[in-house]
Amino acid sequence: MNPVPNSRAEALQRDAADPLAQRRALFDLPEGVTYLVGHSLGPPPKGARERMAAAQADWAQGLVRSWNTAGWIDLAERTGDRLAALIGAEPGEVIVADSVSVNLFKLAAAALAQARTYALFVEEDEFPTDQYIAAGLGGLSGAEVRRLPAGGTFEALKAGGVVIRSAVNYRSAEVADIAAHEREAKRHGARIVWDLSHATGVLDLKLGADGAELAAGCTYKYLNGGPGAPAFVYVSNALAPKLANPLPGWMGHAAPFAFDANYAPRGGAARFASGTPPILSLAALSGALEALEGADLAQVQAKARALGALALARAQAMGLDALSPLGDARRGGHVSLRIPEGYPVVQALAARGVMADFRAPDTVRFGFSPLFLTYTGVWDAADALAEILASKSWDQPQFHARAKVT
Amino acid sequence: MNPVPNSRAEALQRDAADPLAQRRALFDLPEGVTYLVGHSLGPPPKGARERMAAAQADWAQGLVRSWNTAGWIDLAERTGDRLAALIGAEPGEVIVADSVSVNLFKLAAAALAQARTYALFVEEDEFPTDQYIAAGLGGLSGAEVRRLPAGGTFEALKAGGVVIRSAVNYRSAEVADIAAHEREAKRHGARIVWDLSHATGVLDLKLGADGAELAAGCTYKYLNGGPGAPAFVYVSNALAPKLANPLPGWMGHAAPFAFDANYAPRGGAARFASGTPPILSLAALSGALEALEGADLAQVQAKARALGALALARAQAMGLDALSPLGDARRGGHVSLRIPEGYPVVQALAARGVMADFRAPDTVRFGFSPLFLTYTGVWDAADALAEILASKSWDQPQFHARAKVT
Repeated sequence: MNPVPNSRAEALQRDAADPLAQRRALFDLPEGVTYLVGHSLGPPPKGARERMAAAQADWAQGLVRSWNTAGWIDLAERTGDRLAALIGAEPGEVIVADSVSVNLFKLAAAALAQARTYALFVEEDEFPTDQYIAAGLGGLSGAEVRRLPAGGTFEALKAGGVVIRSAVNYRSAEVADIAAHEREAKRHGARIVWDLSHATGVLDLKLGADGAELAAGCTYKYLNGGPGAPAFVYVSNALAPKLANPLPGWMGHAAPFAFDANYAPRGGAARFASGTPPILSLAALSGALEALEGADLAQVQAKARALGALALARAQAMGLDALSPLGDARRGGHVSLRIPEGYPVVQALAARGVMADFRAPDTVRFGFSPLFLTYTGVWDAADALAEILASKSWDQPQFHARAKVT
Repeated sequence: MNPVPNSRAEALQRDAADPLAQRRALFDLPEGVTYLVGHSLGPPPKGARERMAAAQADWAQGLVRSWNTAGWIDLAERTGDRLAALIGAEPGEVIVADSVSVNLFKLAAAALAQARTYALFVEEDEFPTDQYIAAGLGGLSGAEVRRLPAGGTFEALKAGGVVIRSAVNYRSAEVADIAAHEREAKRHGARIVWDLSHATGVLDLKLGADGAELAAGCTYKYLNGGPGAPAFVYVSNALAPKLANPLPGWMGHAAPFAFDANYAPRGGAARFASGTPPILSLAALSGALEALEGADLAQVQAKARALGALALARAQAMGLDALSPLGDARRGGHVSLRIPEGYPVVQALAARGVMADFRAPDTVRFGFSPLFLTYTGVWDAADALAEILASKSWDQPQFHARAKVT
């Protein structure tokens, strides 16, 4: 439909026709930076700053009363409902809570009781936390834990256990076919806990229509919720009543202020709330979601993939290998390239205002957050990369210095 | 040593001699409010506001680089070390992470593997979350869960299992003898997970000296970390290497950015980190702790108890029954009174600028945060209560209207 821009002039034309273009103004972005790390930490939307300021004022002026008067008490649920609209879920099917790690644990534990086989499966190239959590849960529950070869999930569903599976691989950006996996899972009494960390806010997810029942995801990537912003839990309304949260805290109780010694879960996903949510961070997330309000997720997905396709075409012209699928339909919001000298190249790019990230040993990731990036910006970033590689300007001592995190 | 003030003049003298008096200036407090709910949500220290503003600026300007350049990556550990100094622990023995609910689960699960008996015990009048978490963990792990009568912990240690026990009861403020419990636990191969939520920042805790090995606590009460501020985990350096976190996330990994498929825990309490911490909320907490920096915890504890003793003496003169122990040494930072018409009384107090909290059916709690309260303020609050009760001014329709949370 829309061919990849072949020149800067064509990139400019695409920007002029971009239906998301005006959303860039909703962000606080530093001057002179092309930020291609939105897949790791999104930049601050102005709404995040505003809601945080309001939460701070509520803390100072309303004090403990703000749990009521400022609506803190159901902020996790209300924010969950806004998030539900972004992933193809119904109101009540999403609650904001804890971290992805903790939420995967809760969901996988609850799923074990609803699967034909008491076993956990994770592919060996999944994000490490997903593997650690499966191991931790296996150790505590006695469930068998099996590590699958990359791409082995579909076959493993036949065993009828619980699989933790990313919808978008954190390294390659390869997309899983949620609907096909869910059909196969239901055929064999298996349950899938989807990790939506690299998918939410960038793909046009249709969890309900695709038959997904259980998912967790982070909110600090394409949702721009802030560093370490609280994560979310999705549970289908059909399955929720059958599920027990293994970490039942008072915030998941039907009547938290009755201080009942016995646990009675709230309806829907809210039963997966545990302790008191971090309101200041949660307020930032709730404001950040305003940047996506009313956006057509199909347009969001299309633009992310178009920017990725542009980057891949330019990389191919530079003779670089891609870890990411070339076909748009199989790719999430980021593109990973193999660059043996990746670490200093990323530093050299940063020196020119182009931020990307490096994953050892040789992967450079570029994230294409569609709300604030432009086609021209990505075109110019590709120019910068081409110049750095051609001139070998990355081979300077200051670009080799290592920081703790990249 | 210091008798309870018998007049407003004597209260003024105590304020004049108060070594903590100047710390009040470290808080943002609304005019005309005597805030006796610091045991539920502490007010914002100025340091919290400053650190949050800095974290927001780091997010906007440094973007993802701020994990390194602004020190976010080890903020949970550094904040843990500052907290360690407030509870009689060593550096490395405390990490800030998750919520109290999640942390109690992690610690109790780890403790089960180190106890003589695979069983969990919780007293029936413990904070409900502590009971729910024990039930959830029992369901998942197969550990027996036994509910104890109030005060039954000491006897139950003979069974050699794992007990979750508050250091200060959330309702009565009764203090547990940590050292005596730990001696008995060690005699029988039992392990105690202390819930320090109502103790931290108000009692002069000596966890190491008292032989405590495992604890979790919240930071939004007497530590004033902000609504839902992240909680903490304490693990003694001696026990830590033997413990496995059942929710091992990448933040607890020895080399999180190696993205290793196998889990290798960090040393000390840091192995109990799971997912990415909510940095904005964590920054607020880290700034909030500045209000306690350099404070003598013995003075903090003494002032909290002196304010409580003043309130109890005035309550006794009003003919009110106390749920809280009268002897200072057995009481934490709050005082609970039985007032059958407690709900409207609390509203009538609020109308005069005195904030307290109500717990159904008939308990009114007054929290004595020693950093920002004055003897005179408590004296005047007692006057207000006496007038409200004597005049029955609480019996007006507006004071009976119910909010969701009190």
